[in-house]
Amino acid sequence: MQFSSELLENAVNEFARLPGIGKKTALRLVLHLLKTETEKVESFGEAIVRMRQEIKFCQRCFNVSDTDICAICSNPLRKQNLICVVESIRDVIAIESTQQFSGTYHILGGIISPLDGIGPDQLNIEALVQRIKNDQPEEVIFALNPNIQGDTTIYYIQKKLASLPVKVTTIARGISFGGELEYADEMTLARSISNRLPVESYVSNR
Amino acid sequence: MQFSSELLENAVNEFARLPGIGKKTALRLVLHLLKTETEKVESFGEAIVRMRQEIKFCQRCFNVSDTDICAICSNPLRKQNLICVVESIRDVIAIESTQQFSGTYHILGGIISPLDGIGPDQLNIEALVQRIKNDQPEEVIFALNPNIQGDTTIYYIQKKLASLPVKVTTIARGISFGGELEYADEMTLARSISNRLPVESYVSNR
Repeated sequence: MQFSSELLENAVNEFARLPGIGKKTALRLVLHLLKTETEKVESFGEAIVRMRQEIKFCQRCFNVSDTDICAICSNPLRKQNLICVVESIRDVIAIESTQQFSGTYHILGGIISPLDGIGPDQLNIEALVQRIKNDQPEEVIFALNPNIQGDTTIYYIQKKLASLPVKVTTIARGISFGGELEYADEMTLARSISNRLPVESYVSNR
Repeated sequence: MQFSSELLENAVNEFARLPGIGKKTALRLVLHLLKTETEKVESFGEAIVRMRQEIKFCQRCFNVSDTDICAICSNPLRKQNLICVVESIRDVIAIESTQQFSGTYHILGGIISPLDGIGPDQLNIEALVQRIKNDQPEEVIFALNPNIQGDTTIYYIQKKLASLPVKVTTIARGISFGGELEYADEMTLARSISNRLPVESYVSNR
């Protein structure tokens, strides 16, 4: 692309550095901002820079936070004796959007994946074990993606917790609500049969 | 979406205001920036805000520019007696990328479209007519999108230029290079037959 303005070119190049944004999309976004009022563009730039400069990570659960202890960990209405272990902030947002979970979180910051060079030491696992030792929660729920890396991570952490008096569970895996049996993969279908539920508990949870 | 941080939420909302960027994409981009070094995020924000604050429009051709007269209009190597009339900056970038055009531009800033409430007065048409009267260029080439609005705009401007000693042309319309006859729409095919070229001129232009 040939630009007649360096200012324009810089802005397009900066946008095109974002994942999934190509040069053409970047140009479209920049030309949109060019037509937007200056104050709105300034508040766009400010919101992004401030977010990066000022955001903190909760010292207890490692969630993003505006304060040292996040809004969830410091909320007396949340069950502090229930910890849901997730891979990333994105999973917290997904679970919070269901409005069905009233405990707290612990964000691992990734998942054990030797092929990608990620071992237990790069994750917030030791902090989780310490947290469980100190706070003695009733239950730890693993809400990790159902794949080999997720299972490896659960297995690793669960061994570390074996001697502690805490109940360890994992979110149910099975056929998605609205999904169809014939299109489910074999692994999912097989597991959902071996982990079958008594109908009375299924009905009472509806 | 439920956020545990207002800083995060603001940044996501600002991104989601851009056209074609939904909440999920906005979150993905913001979480990417959260992992990026602070300086890089600062230069991202600065490039966009500076672009909006400092960019100018060329006083002659209305192209975006870092100076009062753009780099193309002030370049002695460009044919100043050849003006290509386009709808938007995007078209200039597209034509410049071909590296085949050595004249100058005139950006209308839109196209006559009564249905969208855009009349000739909202476009840079009067400035074009004055520019042609003053500079007396040899030729004006219309490079507008081939549709009703484009044709209306050409017709309107061409009438205004009728009394002036300037050659008025339009870019060729026909079957795209690599296109297939059987898939061309009837309008394009009919026009490309009525505007047929002598083979010798076609061959010599290759």
